[in-house]
Amino acid sequence: MNSSLFEQHQKTLESALNAIKTRGYWSPFNEMPSPRAYGETAAADGEAAFKAQLGQPFRLDQPGSGTVGEERSPFGFALNIGYPNAEPDALIAAAQKAQAQFRKAGPKAWIGVSLEILARLNQASFEIAHGVMHTTGQAFMMAFQAGGPHAQDRALEAIAYAWDAMRDIPETAYWEKPQGKNAPLAMEKRFTIVPRGIGLVIGCCTFPTWNSYPGLFADLATGNAVIVKPHPAAILPLAITVRIARQVLQEAGFDPNVVTLLATAPNDGALVQSLATRDEIRLIDFTGSTANGDWLETHAPQAQVYTEKAGVNQIVIDSADELKAVSRNIAFSLALYSGQMCTAPQNIYVPRDGIRTAEGTVSFDDVAQSIADAVRKLTADPAKAVELTGAIQNKGVLDRIEQVAGLGTPLLESQRLAHPAFPQATVSTPILLKLDAGRDEATFTQEWFGPIAFVIATDSTWHSLELAARIARTRGALTLSVYSTDEAVLDAAGEAAVTGGVALSVNLTGGVFVNQSAAFSDFHATGANPAANASLADAAFVANRFRVVQSRRHVPQREPA
Amino acid sequence: MNSSLFEQHQKTLESALNAIKTRGYWSPFNEMPSPRAYGETAAADGEAAFKAQLGQPFRLDQPGSGTVGEERSPFGFALNIGYPNAEPDALIAAAQKAQAQFRKAGPKAWIGVSLEILARLNQASFEIAHGVMHTTGQAFMMAFQAGGPHAQDRALEAIAYAWDAMRDIPETAYWEKPQGKNAPLAMEKRFTIVPRGIGLVIGCCTFPTWNSYPGLFADLATGNAVIVKPHPAAILPLAITVRIARQVLQEAGFDPNVVTLLATAPNDGALVQSLATRDEIRLIDFTGSTANGDWLETHAPQAQVYTEKAGVNQIVIDSADELKAVSRNIAFSLALYSGQMCTAPQNIYVPRDGIRTAEGTVSFDDVAQSIADAVRKLTADPAKAVELTGAIQNKGVLDRIEQVAGLGTPLLESQRLAHPAFPQATVSTPILLKLDAGRDEATFTQEWFGPIAFVIATDSTWHSLELAARIARTRGALTLSVYSTDEAVLDAAGEAAVTGGVALSVNLTGGVFVNQSAAFSDFHATGANPAANASLADAAFVANRFRVVQSRRHVPQREPA
Repeated sequence: MNSSLFEQHQKTLESALNAIKTRGYWSPFNEMPSPRAYGETAAADGEAAFKAQLGQPFRLDQPGSGTVGEERSPFGFALNIGYPNAEPDALIAAAQKAQAQFRKAGPKAWIGVSLEILARLNQASFEIAHGVMHTTGQAFMMAFQAGGPHAQDRALEAIAYAWDAMRDIPETAYWEKPQGKNAPLAMEKRFTIVPRGIGLVIGCCTFPTWNSYPGLFADLATGNAVIVKPHPAAILPLAITVRIARQVLQEAGFDPNVVTLLATAPNDGALVQSLATRDEIRLIDFTGSTANGDWLETHAPQAQVYTEKAGVNQIVIDSADELKAVSRNIAFSLALYSGQMCTAPQNIYVPRDGIRTAEGTVSFDDVAQSIADAVRKLTADPAKAVELTGAIQNKGVLDRIEQVAGLGTPLLESQRLAHPAFPQATVSTPILLKLDAGRDEATFTQEWFGPIAFVIATDSTWHSLELAARIARTRGALTLSVYSTDEAVLDAAGEAAVTGGVALSVNLTGGVFVNQSAAFSDFHATGANPAANASLADAAFVANRFRVVQSRRHVPQREPA
Repeated sequence: MNSSLFEQHQKTLESALNAIKTRGYWSPFNEMPSPRAYGETAAADGEAAFKAQLGQPFRLDQPGSGTVGEERSPFGFALNIGYPNAEPDALIAAAQKAQAQFRKAGPKAWIGVSLEILARLNQASFEIAHGVMHTTGQAFMMAFQAGGPHAQDRALEAIAYAWDAMRDIPETAYWEKPQGKNAPLAMEKRFTIVPRGIGLVIGCCTFPTWNSYPGLFADLATGNAVIVKPHPAAILPLAITVRIARQVLQEAGFDPNVVTLLATAPNDGALVQSLATRDEIRLIDFTGSTANGDWLETHAPQAQVYTEKAGVNQIVIDSADELKAVSRNIAFSLALYSGQMCTAPQNIYVPRDGIRTAEGTVSFDDVAQSIADAVRKLTADPAKAVELTGAIQNKGVLDRIEQVAGLGTPLLESQRLAHPAFPQATVSTPILLKLDAGRDEATFTQEWFGPIAFVIATDSTWHSLELAARIARTRGALTLSVYSTDEAVLDAAGEAAVTGGVALSVNLTGGVFVNQSAAFSDFHATGANPAANASLADAAFVANRFRVVQSRRHVPQREPA
């Protein structure tokens, strides 16, 4: 059964392996929520499943008693879902027991089970999309794509890296060392891949599946048991994920406690810290605040810790053929999910003397105004705007918009929009402020997570690049974007990106946005600046999730083949 | 020049890549100190170079002033070599400057330079062997093999893993995403491999080259600058290594400060701690005590830290065809370099009811006596014995022999031997004690580094295996050895090895000893128990020494190929 799952999905795996090495476009999961791809009734079925879950206990037959859960949709209603309340001790004990059996099944079984879970998750994309939408505040299309097929892509990418690392270890080897005139020494060696133990995956409230799947599947594909700890505000998408994983495990003959859910009420910091430092927890994948990520990196030395934390994403505008196309692209990046993406830009550097364009020099103020106008235009029609911005995930974001307002010269006020379908939804358009690089560094060197951006006057493009490199290096960044018609500037931007350890996008004026990161092609985060200590995904992301234990014994010398 | 070095050594690299994947026997470096392999005058030239260095300043044109160094040969004389005294600040500044240029040369240049350094080190094997002998106390043959070709093998292994990880990242990729009826989105992506920064390699006093080369060459092969900090008692072999590395770097057109030496006087703990926690130090490779290794793992979060620390290596005797062959093999392992190997066995578990052999049951006491007799026989002739035991590296080892003597029932006293060639040498044969598993756990669960071993009475082989697994898991271990004629016991030993995360050797009665670990085939340490957090070498050992920074830009859609 286990190896048949591997064989069943082997073609997908082979394609994924090819994709991570060639890094062109590829995905086995359709990103369009279309009936042709997902079936005529999939959309309605998914929505119905989501609605049926509201106000009900979430069934998951794992150790624990009672229920927990206080999720509210950013679109304005309480989910009222009661998740099983689990004691960390009980989950650890159950995971250890399950892991002992799972471990012995070996790499092909781990990979096969992981790929089958992924196939089932893809079928549940609509249900998960509604879960993502009503916990994160993402508009439906993004919730479907980022929460469904794109998250599944990132999971498959991690599985492919895991298989690539494990298949490099031969199961056995024949070793024959010449001894001059004496008979050679001959040994057979056996290499057993041993998972680390129990992984803890700590989710965030904005991309509960996209950011958690790589760690979850990297752990599972290398034979580790996993405890999934969603953000208290975004449990449902991961609860559905865990339910599906447990079903597949059970069908494949494994103890379903290989994957368990630790749902929590808000303010679960102490609980998470005490769990994360347990000796049994050998792998931690975390997405969230810098404070919590740094804490884990320094206080859980028993575990391999992979973190994605805060950062300051930046855009350098040097010159452009057509400013309008630049502004449109930037405006989209600012408005998309109200800037609540770890990849959303915040600091936009423009020389105070203006920029060159095909129509001559444009002043700093006119560049700033052009971006503000583009955002205004994009958000003018509330019915269209909300499908782009979604809703504000939490009150902290709203507070930040208020707090930042006094710190610069207003370019664009944040507007509250009425959502046509969800009157109680909290929808806010981006706020834009003008800052000065010389005066306002204290403001723009910190992350203002949400629909908040600064157009910052610098002395020159070289100054802009110096700032971008330094801030990425010291404060962290996932994205850097540059606009220039000058190849020397683009070369310098490339150097700034290397210095800052940050991915660079050049002259995006079309249908690609700096916020977007495509699995199998784009490395998400570099692990080379404080925004993350790992990259999604690469060999380093998987290679230390398992170890190799060998045994060797003498065997008769083999005849040469 | 740089890429020509790569091409010059490409065949060796290809063979090494094949070796790490198939893990059979392979080495490009001859382990016999023979004129045929190394040249007619190599032995004499190497010895002369060593002797000429005694009492002289060590020339190394790197930042610093004055000299430092207090090495004494365990064979009984002071080396009186003055190494350049360097300020950590100055070395960091020089390394940063050198690294900026080295980084831009790219992977092929890094690999080419690393392989050329290795080829030159091989030519210097005799000089290095004398340096290793007269700092570590190893007898000449071991100093030559472990300090020369075997260390070079481990370096090449690390280089091969580094290249294997880096070549998986394409330099460019073409990405084309279909957009339904619209023209596809087309981008070119560039991927730049970026070294972490500066590596710090901290050597030990018993295997200064063998244990340091993997980290040194893994760093260098991935473009990092390296500061080499030898143990104060074993500077010379690494000083020669650094000198050769700097020559090659300079000849290849690089700033030689890519590799620098930080020689120190004894008790350099505070200096090392302050250096290791510097923000510029992004990689640390350490071999030494558990206390120092644990300190680095928890106090240097800015760096990737790879450690090899103390452990308790164990032998389980269940049954044997011929006890004498077992005892001979074990005795050799105990006597080799006076047990001053991180892989040397310490705890030998024997059921108190005795073991089955082809000649019937042998009592516990007779098994213990057989091992003691074998050690006695092996060390009876001092002239032969010293070529096996070498000398005692430091007084701590001697003190430990005295300290342990009262903790068990004597089986074999440690003897001081007179070295025929070096009358002042400190030579001590192994001490063997009988212990009881039920009573003496406090004694045998700690590492007694040196020629100290225990024959421990257990309730049964199952008890022995339980102890072995538990102690490996909790105290750390690099090796586990089992003797049994029963496949069920061998299976259980395999499980114990997995539980303990320790490499297993089965029924070694011939020319292979549990202490030995062959590059390209045996993984040295697993990283899965407290004896080490990394393995020499695997993908995890190299994959996080570099990061990838990408850039992407739109390009015209390409015609299908």
